[in-house]
Amino acid sequence: MEDKKTPITSQQIKEILNLHDKTERLKKLFADVHHHDIFILCKELEPVEIAQIIATLGRPKGIELFEEFEINQQRDIFRNFSKEWMADILEEMAPDERVDFIKALPHERTEEILPLVARAERNDIKKLIQYKEGTAGSILTTDYAFLPPDITAKEGLEKLKLQAFDRETIYYIYIIDIERKLLGFVSLKNILLAKSDSLIKNIMNATVISVNAKEDVEVVAKKLSDYDFLAIPVVDNDNKLLGIVTVDDVVDVVIEEDTEDIYRYGAAGEHIDYMNSGPFSIARQRILWLLLLVAVGFLSGWVMEKYAFQLQAVVALVFFIPVLLGSGGNAGTQSSTVIIRGMATGEIKMKDLLKVFKKEFFTGLLVGVIMGFFATARALIMQRNPLLGVVVGMTMVITVMLATILGALLPLLFKKLKLDPALMSAPFITSILDVVVIFLYLQIAIFLFKL
Amino acid sequence: MEDKKTPITSQQIKEILNLHDKTERLKKLFADVHHHDIFILCKELEPVEIAQIIATLGRPKGIELFEEFEINQQRDIFRNFSKEWMADILEEMAPDERVDFIKALPHERTEEILPLVARAERNDIKKLIQYKEGTAGSILTTDYAFLPPDITAKEGLEKLKLQAFDRETIYYIYIIDIERKLLGFVSLKNILLAKSDSLIKNIMNATVISVNAKEDVEVVAKKLSDYDFLAIPVVDNDNKLLGIVTVDDVVDVVIEEDTEDIYRYGAAGEHIDYMNSGPFSIARQRILWLLLLVAVGFLSGWVMEKYAFQLQAVVALVFFIPVLLGSGGNAGTQSSTVIIRGMATGEIKMKDLLKVFKKEFFTGLLVGVIMGFFATARALIMQRNPLLGVVVGMTMVITVMLATILGALLPLLFKKLKLDPALMSAPFITSILDVVVIFLYLQIAIFLFKL
Repeated sequence: MEDKKTPITSQQIKEILNLHDKTERLKKLFADVHHHDIFILCKELEPVEIAQIIATLGRPKGIELFEEFEINQQRDIFRNFSKEWMADILEEMAPDERVDFIKALPHERTEEILPLVARAERNDIKKLIQYKEGTAGSILTTDYAFLPPDITAKEGLEKLKLQAFDRETIYYIYIIDIERKLLGFVSLKNILLAKSDSLIKNIMNATVISVNAKEDVEVVAKKLSDYDFLAIPVVDNDNKLLGIVTVDDVVDVVIEEDTEDIYRYGAAGEHIDYMNSGPFSIARQRILWLLLLVAVGFLSGWVMEKYAFQLQAVVALVFFIPVLLGSGGNAGTQSSTVIIRGMATGEIKMKDLLKVFKKEFFTGLLVGVIMGFFATARALIMQRNPLLGVVVGMTMVITVMLATILGALLPLLFKKLKLDPALMSAPFITSILDVVVIFLYLQIAIFLFKL
Repeated sequence: MEDKKTPITSQQIKEILNLHDKTERLKKLFADVHHHDIFILCKELEPVEIAQIIATLGRPKGIELFEEFEINQQRDIFRNFSKEWMADILEEMAPDERVDFIKALPHERTEEILPLVARAERNDIKKLIQYKEGTAGSILTTDYAFLPPDITAKEGLEKLKLQAFDRETIYYIYIIDIERKLLGFVSLKNILLAKSDSLIKNIMNATVISVNAKEDVEVVAKKLSDYDFLAIPVVDNDNKLLGIVTVDDVVDVVIEEDTEDIYRYGAAGEHIDYMNSGPFSIARQRILWLLLLVAVGFLSGWVMEKYAFQLQAVVALVFFIPVLLGSGGNAGTQSSTVIIRGMATGEIKMKDLLKVFKKEFFTGLLVGVIMGFFATARALIMQRNPLLGVVVGMTMVITVMLATILGALLPLLFKKLKLDPALMSAPFITSILDVVVIFLYLQIAIFLFKL
């Protein structure tokens, strides 16, 4: 569907790079190819070869290709450029991507090249570099289209044509005063449809939805999606326009944020490039959590050691430990899944704490009683021991209720206490519950069996 | 930042709805307010009141407001409209939202109203209603801008102005022949910047990235994000243009798909409106999985029953069951988290199966040996029993390796076998591992202790 010509291969590119007339040949080869498809072809090439392709493609296509790479790869490719091309690249990159890249460059390198970069871009870099990762400021672009309020639609359209070449989007135009304060916005569609002598300020929408530069990217994503915008303006505390965040950047951010949340919840460490990482790097991401949880597991063992005598007296107690621990872990995983995801998407808020408690209390009671019934039945049928049935059933009800409530409330409480929510993984909740459940189970057993 | 006027309250709206001149008052009140903000105000109103507001706002704002509601709420509001307004609503809604809504309406109602809907919209509904949920076809809109190839940029711009009013986006224009076959696309920016007598076919981009109507929405989202498009054309098997999917619809879809994946992984059932659901509905979502896992837990108990004699002979074996089960569950959760998320984002593909196996084999070995060391040390220190140390250490190494490998491979194998991937939850993997680990542990113990 996408391309009816014979596909280009990496081998073919390598061969062309050895030819005398590589510049013309490459330009011709890639004339109609989207930079993302060139990027995919580059995966099997060396950084020095990629640098040649980028320099050959020139601007804007070479720059767009460069922006496709991850920062480590960008650094490797960058080394192979001439100093002039390095400065060109920095001038032409999208402002948000540029800042991320500069942060990753060695300090000496930056010192060396920045003076070669035009003053406007240099100032832009200085301004954007101060925003923290994960805020609107860190993903904004300063390449937005803007107009003053007091010109006509026709004059506006002419001005826009001049801006169009290097703007990320010209489909929303922001109306600002001399101090860059945000007055309103107008869509290109509305300028096109307006009478040519209408004043911009009369066709603009004066109620602008904007975000502060310090706002979290998830909140920005939520707003863009709620209002169905293609871009949202980012302002400082004085409502001065700093830039815009476009929806295509937000899609990437949402996917990456969700990946981080999921990794955290699975106690799987940081998200690293899995397919290109060796077992040592992968193991390093996982081992810390595992060891911590082993320590918690030892605690469960220690509790059992204290009750060695009772366990030996009624060994049947042991048979129900896996199902009790498993049920606690599973019920806790369920409720924490719902709450953690709900907090991430804004479905559940801090102020809902009490409501959540009530919901989970009754849910836990309902589910716990049903499961307790089956656990008791199992004990009666297999062990023909009514007292054991009561112990197992009671523990099951309490376990499931406790797990359901704790799984839901711990994430909310951790957030309230401003503790690192990264601690709230399913394995963590499960392991903590293990200790509590074993203790409860044996206490109940001692009490009822009079051990 | 967003609105400097005193905020509107739901109470205020309720009062206005009782007044004689409500129409004018409401129109004035909401003149500058985005439909999403009106939607938020409506949360405390009754369906009949919301219906009045929608009818008052008229088109397009009333329709946009109506589209904000979830389908159940839409149904409740819809009941309060006159038949003519019902038909109007159906004519004016975005084609993708309209189809979802019609699917949810009672059959008699649809029969009654559809004849009142204009023929073009009726045909559109018939066409879209056949696509399965979760495919590109189910979220496409037919309100795209299009042009023939043989006219000039100036003529094209004039034609676009006529289309602009009811198109979802006019920023990408699709070039089609008389048979609606997709020939290329051009951005509004490029038409604006082109010489007015250039032919569209000479300024259009002839290499179009498109998706088939049957493609999964996740794939569509990935493509939109990879190519940084605002919209992507959807074609049938003959490359005829059916419609477009816009990026703002995709953000919602990505968030909802990720929520579903996360719920599935946490064995938390279907995603329901948590804050508005009672304990019975919540419990219903969760109980089935819990009971299934209880059954698996009973299996672990049954295995232990078979070894009751050995457990009683060396009761210290029991103390290490929680840490062994926990470690297996945690290692399996980690690797399955990485693989399941990697499959969802396209980072890991079916063809990587062997590579994944190798990675996880060595990762499991590394991590398992470290954890086995600590487990052995714990047994030696606390129980002063070298044989027990060996049993526990060996079981730990095997458990962690097995868990790491199974956690990674089961999701891939399930996909390969076209089994329901919804089975692959962290609690499920953990529960299955419980049974296997207990069996292995006791077998190793019997062998080494010669029980």
